Amino acid sequence: MMWTVKVVGLGMLALSLSLELLIWLFRRLKPGRIFNEVLFFPSEIVCVEHIFTPSSPYSCICSLPHGVETSFSRLLHHIMSASNSLDLCVFAFSNMDLCRAVLALHGKGVTIRVLTDKDYAAITGSQIGVLRRAGICVRCDVGSVYMHHKFAVMDGRLLITGSLNWTLTAVQSNTENIVVTEEPDLVQPFIKEFHRLWVHNDPARFHQSHDIKPAHVIV
Amino acid sequence: MMWTVKVVGLGMLALSLSLELLIWLFRRLKPGRIFNEVLFFPSEIVCVEHIFTPSSPYSCICSLPHGVETSFSRLLHHIMSASNSLDLCVFAFSNMDLCRAVLALHGKGVTIRVLTDKDYAAITGSQIGVLRRAGICVRCDVGSVYMHHKFAVMDGRLLITGSLNWTLTAVQSNTENIVVTEEPDLVQPFIKEFHRLWVHNDPARFHQSHDIKPAHVIV
Repeated sequence: MMWTVKVVGLGMLALSLSLELLIWLFRRLKPGRIFNEVLFFPSEIVCVEHIFTPSSPYSCICSLPHGVETSFSRLLHHIMSASNSLDLCVFAFSNMDLCRAVLALHGKGVTIRVLTDKDYAAITGSQIGVLRRAGICVRCDVGSVYMHHKFAVMDGRLLITGSLNWTLTAVQSNTENIVVTEEPDLVQPFIKEFHRLWVHNDPARFHQSHDIKPAHVIV
Repeated sequence: MMWTVKVVGLGMLALSLSLELLIWLFRRLKPGRIFNEVLFFPSEIVCVEHIFTPSSPYSCICSLPHGVETSFSRLLHHIMSASNSLDLCVFAFSNMDLCRAVLALHGKGVTIRVLTDKDYAAITGSQIGVLRRAGICVRCDVGSVYMHHKFAVMDGRLLITGSLNWTLTAVQSNTENIVVTEEPDLVQPFIKEFHRLWVHNDPARFHQSHDIKPAHVIV
């Protein structure tokens, strides 16, 4: 009788230990939720001052609605989340709030690289000149009809991509979308493509080819 | 002695059964790999005839390279994978191969809804008229400056979205991207947004308002 109790007891112990192991393994192997968000535009026009001055969020006295979260405030929030690097690849960039966000990151020491379209960089209202004058490294794509991307990668971790150019019309007047994701299968190809385009459009490459073939420069 | 053997034996049995249960549970709980792909453009210009005539893939004798997989052939492949529905929301649609793909799906009985920009639907080269004449239901967005989306949802399952308009220039000459994903967190918001825009731009709504306020129609 005592032996039977011991047998059952030991069996129960083995079972419970195995179940504990099972629960531990399950918790370890269960993947963490990967951040994904979709934002649609046009976005409601609200005050976004608090995003730039988080220390005094209630200081703004402008006439726009305050304390309202919109697609645009979410976009600004994601951009401002960069702590090390921002790689931006955008066709048209004339939105002054988005420019302010990039300048604020630059002021905090975030490494910023901007790749843009050669024609749209020079249009009226473009903020590309403002970024350049602030000391941000900007390159223009020279190999295609249009450099039509609209994506950004923050800290090599968070991707923003979609139909939205960084303009006021896109944000306030068009139907647009952006996908915000940390999914590595999506983020990594964009990092790779940014690197490829960045190297491909290095002005040093063109100067070098001029040095080799001076006749081409003169002609 | 015999009892000790039995105790150890039963303990081992309980342990092995628990481990089997653990392995079974792990296999059940391990999430299946969600399909994600990023395609970059411009795409190499190759023959895509085999995508439209899979029964005779080697029949084309055109001068373009054959049997080469490109970003554009991948895009066509994904679109042609639709078996029940295609919801397309695109700013500019002038690419004849993409039009052919949509017509082929329509011919196979796939339910197709196309939402597009009111201005770009009428420009030279637009394929929107071709789709309408084939009997495909098309609606134009009337509520925004530009209906600037470029996304498609196949069978409520697979999302294609990005910077790429459905034009020849976008495919062959611009730097562009599209994300192709089955991630529900990304697909579902696009399905919801398509539905919202589709209902919002139902011509019947405008006719109805005209019926209610006939004076507005006359004025």
